[in-house]
Amino acid sequence: MMNIIDIIIKKKDQKELTDKEIKYVVEKFTQGNIKDYQMSALLMAIVINGLTDEETISLTKYMVLSGDILNLDNIDNIVDKHSTGGVGDKTTLIVAPIVASCGCKLAKMSGRGLGYTGGTIDKLESIPGFKVSLTKEEFIEEIKNLGMSITSQTENIALADKKIYALRDVTGTTESIPLIASSIMSKKIASGSKKLVLDIKVGEGALIKNISDARKLANLMIKIGKENSMQVVCLLTNMDIPLGNNIGNSLEVLEAINTLYYFPDTNLTRLCSELATQMVSLALDIDYDEAKKRVDETLRSKKAYNKLLAFVNDRNGDITKLPKSKYFYQIKSDKEGYLSELSSLELAKLSMHLGAGRKTKEDSTIDYSAGIIINKNLNDKVKIGDVIITLYTNGEIPQIDKNILFKIAENPNKAYDLIYEIIK
Amino acid sequence: MMNIIDIIIKKKDQKELTDKEIKYVVEKFTQGNIKDYQMSALLMAIVINGLTDEETISLTKYMVLSGDILNLDNIDNIVDKHSTGGVGDKTTLIVAPIVASCGCKLAKMSGRGLGYTGGTIDKLESIPGFKVSLTKEEFIEEIKNLGMSITSQTENIALADKKIYALRDVTGTTESIPLIASSIMSKKIASGSKKLVLDIKVGEGALIKNISDARKLANLMIKIGKENSMQVVCLLTNMDIPLGNNIGNSLEVLEAINTLYYFPDTNLTRLCSELATQMVSLALDIDYDEAKKRVDETLRSKKAYNKLLAFVNDRNGDITKLPKSKYFYQIKSDKEGYLSELSSLELAKLSMHLGAGRKTKEDSTIDYSAGIIINKNLNDKVKIGDVIITLYTNGEIPQIDKNILFKIAENPNKAYDLIYEIIK
Repeated sequence: MMNIIDIIIKKKDQKELTDKEIKYVVEKFTQGNIKDYQMSALLMAIVINGLTDEETISLTKYMVLSGDILNLDNIDNIVDKHSTGGVGDKTTLIVAPIVASCGCKLAKMSGRGLGYTGGTIDKLESIPGFKVSLTKEEFIEEIKNLGMSITSQTENIALADKKIYALRDVTGTTESIPLIASSIMSKKIASGSKKLVLDIKVGEGALIKNISDARKLANLMIKIGKENSMQVVCLLTNMDIPLGNNIGNSLEVLEAINTLYYFPDTNLTRLCSELATQMVSLALDIDYDEAKKRVDETLRSKKAYNKLLAFVNDRNGDITKLPKSKYFYQIKSDKEGYLSELSSLELAKLSMHLGAGRKTKEDSTIDYSAGIIINKNLNDKVKIGDVIITLYTNGEIPQIDKNILFKIAENPNKAYDLIYEIIK
Repeated sequence: MMNIIDIIIKKKDQKELTDKEIKYVVEKFTQGNIKDYQMSALLMAIVINGLTDEETISLTKYMVLSGDILNLDNIDNIVDKHSTGGVGDKTTLIVAPIVASCGCKLAKMSGRGLGYTGGTIDKLESIPGFKVSLTKEEFIEEIKNLGMSITSQTENIALADKKIYALRDVTGTTESIPLIASSIMSKKIASGSKKLVLDIKVGEGALIKNISDARKLANLMIKIGKENSMQVVCLLTNMDIPLGNNIGNSLEVLEAINTLYYFPDTNLTRLCSELATQMVSLALDIDYDEAKKRVDETLRSKKAYNKLLAFVNDRNGDITKLPKSKYFYQIKSDKEGYLSELSSLELAKLSMHLGAGRKTKEDSTIDYSAGIIINKNLNDKVKIGDVIITLYTNGEIPQIDKNILFKIAENPNKAYDLIYEIIK
């Protein structure tokens, strides 16, 4: 007879758990027969002592089986994307209409944000009228009609992961490559796509702090994908500075629309173009250059821009009525030089204090109009009195130490790497 | 502002916690503001990554402060004893009347047993009429009148330890030298004695499996004692075979009485004599040989025997009415040779199945009359058909594989070490 205490002790003693033991843990925890305090002890033992790839594959499998599984096999050219979470990351809003305009079918279940910034669902919800939650049938219908759908993750996808994730968040057990890999992959496998492009963020503002951990995570997720007949392409990308210029929900929707219309030369545009190209290449099984050509064409022709508008319209959203904050506050440079650093972590914290993020899981008082616009790009020449960032809020402006938000140096910073590696 | 998640992560990352952080953890957990699932994650990080001596001393201090503290400073010659828990360990029932007869004052708060065997309080409660629980005033009164008192630990001694211990028991986090040391020492310090003899059990049937861990535990407890003006003497003793011949609550009371009356040549008599000598020497501040002489005299003169009867009488217990089980079952040898091994762990498990132990904390259905008598001593010559052990129960006799309970060999076993070391 299995029992949870023996299993916890086994992992504490650095032994490998069997497939049956992992099945027992996931099933009993989902049913409530393993207590939170037992699961958190096991999670800590896993964070410290690790999991083998086989254990991680078993864990993922039983988390998938713990909830509903969507079958999208009868729709062609399906592709999904996921980002491990970054500051100012509105790539889904830009990439989805691009790939849909290229003939792919984007099927994405998305989460709300926790912590410093909003999630994709929060961003969409900032559009007045926008219906974020679809039934399974509506989700499939929209994919077929528009070539893209983004819906809030249903309660029943990877049920065990949802319970485990909530516990990890409050017990200091988030930083674990096998736990991160199995959490993401279980949701993605259960969501039904067999092709996935993963954007693994690396840097101080991200869950993964260094490139070597990012590589481990990428290879593990590719391996889990293989076990589940899913093709996975991983991009390892820079998260030391924010992505694009806008942080905050409605501000990010605005930037997504502008990016699809003007495709300005920003790190956001470059990353979206690369992500979209990888997705198109993967979904349509065509080579990189051909995919790139198609992506560029949908931008130039405004097909992707019109696709986003059609998507918002399909969901009853009114893009002309994005909420605006009552107050704004400009932070100016008091010296001359070059904008040499922007701290994504500090800007994210500030954005949360302005009202754009949730402080706790139960916090529902997100202010969709709050946030930050970065008025200069990295390495721009700056004069005294130039506005560097502008804060938007309906509340009070918090105490600010601008020296931790950005740095003005005598010389521009060394070349900035946006995409470190692509692992397939 | 401190928060528990940061503290958990710090310990996960193998960093040392400050005195203030440990204070925060113990206080907030006792108040219920740190959740069980957070505490168990921290406990697992401690089990795997350890605590420094300074951290352990802080933890002990705040666990002491979490509840009532008994002051016994105005009673002379106070001494306490503690055993880390063994199979057939009824030493308290024997040692207490010996040291009380030698002019010491034994003040002991005792627990109930969990797991395979009963605790001292369960054993006393097997005596019909015996009142196990005293008020603080009654406890002090009895110490003064009889020279000894044993009472069930009040709810309010080391409150935090009680909560933490309950959690460790169900989360696989019991095996940790600093957690064991702080748990025992917090209760002992709060119980008011400044002198303590500790019996650290070593072997397969015990919490501590090897002599090197036992030494670490002993030195740590001595150090914690010093920090709290408490003199601690540690005996490291063998727990590979059961202590004495009887296992089970009323059977152990019976053996304690017999031992005080007949002092047979058993490992139990020898250990009790050594423990009592150390306690008398410590309490009265006299040398070992003088203490030994006094201990021997109280046994020969039956003073200690009469003291135990007086103690039972003082608590309204009727020693003539000890419960007896309905059934007994003899296990005989099917070969000739020497009784070369007795497994304390397997005998303990069997005893629990017969009804003598609790299976869960909530299990109150302990059968005081159930248990085992070992009819031979280790290395006794054995003939075919000789009774080796006898089982007593009111329920059914479980399936038994006698080969795991004991071994009969052609030659006697090598000399058996009862007391490995004494550390002061």
